[in-house]
Amino acid sequence: MKLQQQISFLLELDKLKAVLRRSYINKGERRENSAEHSWHAGIAVMMLSEHANSEIDTMRTIKMMLIHDIVEIDAGDTFVYDKSDEAGKIERENRAADRIFGMLPDDQANELHDLWNEFEARTTPEAMFAAAIDRLLPLLHNYHSDGKAWIHHGITANQVRELNSHIRQGSETLWKYISNIIEDSVAKGYLIDKDK
Amino acid sequence: MKLQQQISFLLELDKLKAVLRRSYINKGERRENSAEHSWHAGIAVMMLSEHANSEIDTMRTIKMMLIHDIVEIDAGDTFVYDKSDEAGKIERENRAADRIFGMLPDDQANELHDLWNEFEARTTPEAMFAAAIDRLLPLLHNYHSDGKAWIHHGITANQVRELNSHIRQGSETLWKYISNIIEDSVAKGYLIDKDK
Repeated sequence: MKLQQQISFLLELDKLKAVLRRSYINKGERRENSAEHSWHAGIAVMMLSEHANSEIDTMRTIKMMLIHDIVEIDAGDTFVYDKSDEAGKIERENRAADRIFGMLPDDQANELHDLWNEFEARTTPEAMFAAAIDRLLPLLHNYHSDGKAWIHHGITANQVRELNSHIRQGSETLWKYISNIIEDSVAKGYLIDKDK
Repeated sequence: MKLQQQISFLLELDKLKAVLRRSYINKGERRENSAEHSWHAGIAVMMLSEHANSEIDTMRTIKMMLIHDIVEIDAGDTFVYDKSDEAGKIERENRAADRIFGMLPDDQANELHDLWNEFEARTTPEAMFAAAIDRLLPLLHNYHSDGKAWIHHGITANQVRELNSHIRQGSETLWKYISNIIEDSVAKGYLIDKDK
């Protein structure tokens, strides 16, 4: 029965609350989990959509944010600065999407799979803005927890610039804001500036 | 500047991740926080809206779910079965809404305040469905963690029926589903059945 499939899927989602990210919340109190991050990202789209480079469908973008990390239930969170297992990551995440979205009735499974593929491909204005928001939040967390995660992993300003430059595709305004944060993080010693 | 107000609001929201609810996640592993609950509720609306009694504006309902607990940052989570401080709760939550939504630019502050008032008043089809989802999830958590929170607080089946009967206003289908869960919870000893 359709309702039971939907409820089983919702119960499965509970597991995303146990997937830990590298960023710290509340000024360093504890590591963030991917479920609360997804909530934060959904509201961030609600609040910041006016800063997108092009007009976006807010509804689709919020939905995209709410589901963008679900595959981590099986595949785990990958630290963005760790590029050692990129191919393995894609395969793991595709398998996860098949299994988890596949718990739903067909039409909903397809809708969520399409939304997730759109997010990953980052070619629509909605996906580009969603990707910008997805990067903005950990940057804010790192900055406001005195660079805790960056210092712990020895991250450089250039790594942050490279990994986050695609924010610009979604929002020039947010990229300008972030660039200032990166400069200030170097000044404060949260990020290593190797070129100096 | 507008963007700085929006970012300050988003940073403030981090605190909702530290507000603990009474329900346990992942079969009893730990208590749930209000941020991850809000994410779960947003997706539940996405997945279950076809079961609403009347046609609803899904977009507005998802937004409502994402912001419905923000006032808890100041006012704390109130256990639904504790009716001792109902008046104090309303006053605390109204003050919280003024302060937290008031951090935003005026138009967005008003939008969120209106959405939250709509949720609390529970008179529109959207708010009635949102309220049903808000109650469905902890019931599922309690049931699937072997009644841990119910047993701990000595909750009876009649308390659960009374507190949750308004699910029916939002969705007869979900209410039927929940009623079966309540019966089964009595049978399994998760809920006290005083009338037997």
